[in-house]
Amino acid sequence: MTDRMQTCDCMVRAGLVITQDDSRTVIADGAVAVDQGIIISVGKAHEMKEKFIPRSDIDLGKKMLMPGLVNAHCHAPMSLLRGVADDLPLMQWLEKYIWPIESGLTREMVAIGAELACAEMMRTGTTAFMDGYFHEDVLGEVAESAGLRVVLGEGFFAFPSPFFATAEDCWQTIESHERRFSQSPFVRNVVTPHAIYTVSPELLSESYELACKLDIPWQIHCAESPAETAQCIELYGMRPLAILESLGLLNDRVTLAHCVDVLPEEIELLSERCVNVVHNPASNHKLDSGIAPVQAMLDAGVNVGLGTDGAASNNQLNMFADMRMAALVGKVQAHDAAAVKAQNALDMATRGSAQCIHWEGLGMLVPGASADMIALDTESPNLMPMHNPISQTVYAASGHEVAMTMVAGHVVYRDGEYSGIDMASLQVRMNEVVKWVRERIS
Amino acid sequence: MTDRMQTCDCMVRAGLVITQDDSRTVIADGAVAVDQGIIISVGKAHEMKEKFIPRSDIDLGKKMLMPGLVNAHCHAPMSLLRGVADDLPLMQWLEKYIWPIESGLTREMVAIGAELACAEMMRTGTTAFMDGYFHEDVLGEVAESAGLRVVLGEGFFAFPSPFFATAEDCWQTIESHERRFSQSPFVRNVVTPHAIYTVSPELLSESYELACKLDIPWQIHCAESPAETAQCIELYGMRPLAILESLGLLNDRVTLAHCVDVLPEEIELLSERCVNVVHNPASNHKLDSGIAPVQAMLDAGVNVGLGTDGAASNNQLNMFADMRMAALVGKVQAHDAAAVKAQNALDMATRGSAQCIHWEGLGMLVPGASADMIALDTESPNLMPMHNPISQTVYAASGHEVAMTMVAGHVVYRDGEYSGIDMASLQVRMNEVVKWVRERIS
Ligand SMILES: [Zn+2]
Ligand SMILES: [Zn+2]
Repeated sequence: MTDRMQTCDCMVRAGLVITQDDSRTVIADGAVAVDQGIIISVGKAHEMKEKFIPRSDIDLGKKMLMPGLVNAHCHAPMSLLRGVADDLPLMQWLEKYIWPIESGLTREMVAIGAELACAEMMRTGTTAFMDGYFHEDVLGEVAESAGLRVVLGEGFFAFPSPFFATAEDCWQTIESHERRFSQSPFVRNVVTPHAIYTVSPELLSESYELACKLDIPWQIHCAESPAETAQCIELYGMRPLAILESLGLLNDRVTLAHCVDVLPEEIELLSERCVNVVHNPASNHKLDSGIAPVQAMLDAGVNVGLGTDGAASNNQLNMFADMRMAALVGKVQAHDAAAVKAQNALDMATRGSAQCIHWEGLGMLVPGASADMIALDTESPNLMPMHNPISQTVYAASGHEVAMTMVAGHVVYRDGEYSGIDMASLQVRMNEVVKWVRERIS
Repeated sequence: MTDRMQTCDCMVRAGLVITQDDSRTVIADGAVAVDQGIIISVGKAHEMKEKFIPRSDIDLGKKMLMPGLVNAHCHAPMSLLRGVADDLPLMQWLEKYIWPIESGLTREMVAIGAELACAEMMRTGTTAFMDGYFHEDVLGEVAESAGLRVVLGEGFFAFPSPFFATAEDCWQTIESHERRFSQSPFVRNVVTPHAIYTVSPELLSESYELACKLDIPWQIHCAESPAETAQCIELYGMRPLAILESLGLLNDRVTLAHCVDVLPEEIELLSERCVNVVHNPASNHKLDSGIAPVQAMLDAGVNVGLGTDGAASNNQLNMFADMRMAALVGKVQAHDAAAVKAQNALDMATRGSAQCIHWEGLGMLVPGASADMIALDTESPNLMPMHNPISQTVYAASGHEVAMTMVAGHVVYRDGEYSGIDMASLQVRMNEVVKWVRERIS
């Protein structure tokens, strides 16, 4: 111990540390020093030991430590609808099942769905997510008490709706969420109109002005499928991205979910305008929307993040599953076994998604970043042998190897225990949900 | 207790029982009675209680019981190569990494890989698998002592090879495996030439005669990619299936792995000839082979099973991951969100695969079937709420919810413990493997 030693709240040691820093360093026998929820240093454990006096220690043994994953596009409370209806054409699925249920959702139901979603995400290594749904203040409360970071997206698709009589109502609700959570390190907001074909051009522009006024991101489902493109051409004589471009809505405040049906020249435009794109491979497959040209977007320099979409069209909120899917389907889409490499997929789920949700300091373990990190059990047989930690993370892990999830320096999940969620009570409430949904669709 | 009550070895109770019987019955609060490794009755727990006096009881609480999954195409010992090299064009991957390592594999190395593969499969709910590799008698020993069912496929691609000087050597080895394991309820054999473009037509026929003589199945990689088709046309002026047809090698003894590049008329032929097909979606994506037309094959009445292929091209041996992938990519392949439904995917991984590996009594929980079954923890957040057990199994489960794996009435895995595998010792040996492989490819 020397005079140069520094105290810190916590030292986390692990057999491997995937930093996702600019050089994508992986450290064997590494450690991360955390103070006040922020990473202050990352290095070899034996060197860190000489530099810091931690007030607490977390020794993860042979486990692999990595940044918490960031789910850049989700509809968390839809976890309630997981498995209610699958394997149906889109309109039948929406009209017969999803919409009739959603139109009757109460704040209490949304709270249950939000809590289930948070539990699943913490369990599978997600530490932050961007959402879009109704009664999102309820989700904010749940995420905050679960200890998870969320960007709330109070959704709207047309006015009047079951949730808002006028646009003004919606804008006021978003502003009230901003005020309500202004002091929270866990909750932020995004303005999130549903889609170009469900919201008028005037209201798209008006909603974007609100995002500028509040200085928050603006998210929209865009170019999700050839069917959407056809609908946009019928309504406005233009493809989806052309409509946004004509309204001045392509820039770095903007995050587009999906971008499956985009042309090469549109990919160039996305790159020039610094637009963020969220890839949702499982959902795009389940709804037969197609496969987004991810390698082409990466080649063009577009920032691509990764999202699960809602549990009704995935049916998981597990970013490990979508990372793997992104790497696998990206190859068939590009006709190239070397496309969408493991490192690309991990980058999308960490640094790429962090940029999509406009939250700095997430997605990497470097000094100054948030202490949002997860540990994987490398003794799970599917993670052996450890030839390549990035490959194991993307191709071999299921997400259920996550043994610890930490957000802002706090352990929110460890070895089956959730610090901020009462799983026993949640299970009981699930039975009520199943009954309620069954009545609603019968 | 009445005179009509019957004793049995074991009664397994569970909150839900997915039987996969002919009507695909799912029983709430069900039970399965097992005697001498065979299921003797399946029904409501309260009714079963009136009928049987079990010598032991396994109460799985709210867990979901289902048939053990059957992995119909695997190269188990390749688990050693998991993550050694990914994201490469096929020939570079084979020539620079896979072949140089494989040519030096010893029986000891194969044993380690076999043990790791068995652990991963039991951990993720697979109770039987069909293999193709070298030194397969080693795999037979390992699987038998782990308590897993295996169909050994002593592989060959050309003679001489690093493993066999002549075809006669290979045939003798297969016959010796047959004799060696003739009394084992766990180990069977398949004749498995590598592929049409790596084995001469004469030896394909000769190997098939061996399969007939021993009355065992005959398996081959076939129509895996457009590249294979091109190679077959160059070599023989015919597409892969036409070559097999010309040799009289399309019938119900035959199981074809992959069938990605098959034409509609070829699908009809597969159906007419009662050929079994194994779909390997993860591997086909990782190597950019394409997507097999599974819905078209199902529509034509072809029996389709499911396989992981080897861990070097997947990189998991987790049938839950491939079930989900089959259902998801099947929709994009068929341009139909209603294609390859959850029930289809589960059927492929159970009954379909059982037929592909020619092992009767697997893949369903019915009287007379083998007591090969697995239990899923329905309290995992991703399996809530339980609107639909089949959907949860295929779309929401990761495979790591498997809490118990039973083969022939014996519990081989439960809550992290393997009855026939010493995981601590396996981990130590893994470190040796990593060093050995590193030297081999440097
Ligand atoms: Zn969405
Ligand atoms: Zn294979």
